[in-house]
Amino acid sequence: MKVSARNVFNGKVRELRPGAVNSEVVLELAGGETLVAVVTMESVDSLKLAVGVEAVALVKAPWVMLMTDAGGIRLSARNCLTGKVVSVADGAVNAEVVIELAGGTKVYSIVTRDAVHELGLVPGAQATAVIKASHVILGVPA
Amino acid sequence: MKVSARNVFNGKVRELRPGAVNSEVVLELAGGETLVAVVTMESVDSLKLAVGVEAVALVKAPWVMLMTDAGGIRLSARNCLTGKVVSVADGAVNAEVVIELAGGTKVYSIVTRDAVHELGLVPGAQATAVIKASHVILGVPA
Amino acid sequence: MKVSARNVFNGKVRELRPGAVNSEVVLELAGGETLVAVVTMESVDSLKLAVGVEAVALVKAPWVMLMTDAGGIRLSARNCLTGKVVSVADGAVNAEVVIELAGGTKVYSIVTRDAVHELGLVPGAQATAVIKASHVILGVPA
Repeated sequence: MKVSARNVFNGKVRELRPGAVNSEVVLELAGGETLVAVVTMESVDSLKLAVGVEAVALVKAPWVMLMTDAGGIRLSARNCLTGKVVSVADGAVNAEVVIELAGGTKVYSIVTRDAVHELGLVPGAQATAVIKASHVILGVPA
Repeated sequence: MKVSARNVFNGKVRELRPGAVNSEVVLELAGGETLVAVVTMESVDSLKLAVGVEAVALVKAPWVMLMTDAGGIRLSARNCLTGKVVSVADGAVNAEVVIELAGGTKVYSIVTRDAVHELGLVPGAQATAVIKASHVILGVPA
Repeated sequence: MKVSARNVFNGKVRELRPGAVNSEVVLELAGGETLVAVVTMESVDSLKLAVGVEAVALVKAPWVMLMTDAGGIRLSARNCLTGKVVSVADGAVNAEVVIELAGGTKVYSIVTRDAVHELGLVPGAQATAVIKASHVILGVPA
């Protein structure tokens, strides 16, 4: 598999919470973090997602929001992964910012250059990658 | 709180429509507009979202679609906010376009440069920012 | 209608699977492909979506992931559209890649330049556009 998504997280299904159309899937990542995905029930069936199954979570970099100074706020986004900025690559409007989590997992994000400046996103700075569960695509070995 | 999301809308929860996995949350913004978000029921519980609660809605600029000439079409996207273009900043592939709503709220969008030209997005032009409910992240004071 | 979304797919509703908050809508595109969208039940009602109704599916280019060499993986994303790369336009951080499907439909995607190189996305290469059902906005004639 080769995908354009900058974020390809390997993990194992730890929990499934089925609904009528969608299901919440909790993945335990190799580095120990958990990642929550919301996928359709049809995908749960066709991918045979079940507790213990190995899966990858794919997240495009523009779907990752960054947060610093989380003090004073709690978010509806199910995934808040805190780490340290390891690189910032500037474009004309956007910038690619890479965060490394404690377990070594790297999270890629595309944010505006203005955000880079306002949040002080420089290598070494602490930052939290925020990912909505509905923005995660799951994959299983064929 | 400091977030990379260009759109941070302050509001108050006006309505909650719970489902099995997800819930629809209707926010009334400071400028009088309403914004609909779909978040997981687990978030509704953990954030203690209820009618009257103050909340912020976070939306990354690339999640905002722009529309001009809405004549002849109705969209499934729950949030269609009409205003006037106040700035356009060009990149190589993308451009950042800012719309100001009647109540003074600014909405940031990243669209392709081709779209800027095709839609005639220049300062002063009328445009509608289209945001899917499932693309809104909610936050509450901790 | 004029929208910034690079992808405007014309089709007809082939199937509706209602849930509590959301509904899955299966669209048959002009080129014969199917596209699945998840929209709120409220949108199904207000747009009077029903089997046989003509609709457009709008998808912003940054919401489209690209995949080559799909061997060995099955994805939760309901929409996997395979075609050939017809153009690649580089920016500083991102690139716009256009895929043409067998039926002639073009799919626009914004991915990072790194992804373009890693996946070997050059005109003529085969690639699959991956679109989550929850990232599709539906529209119907007013």
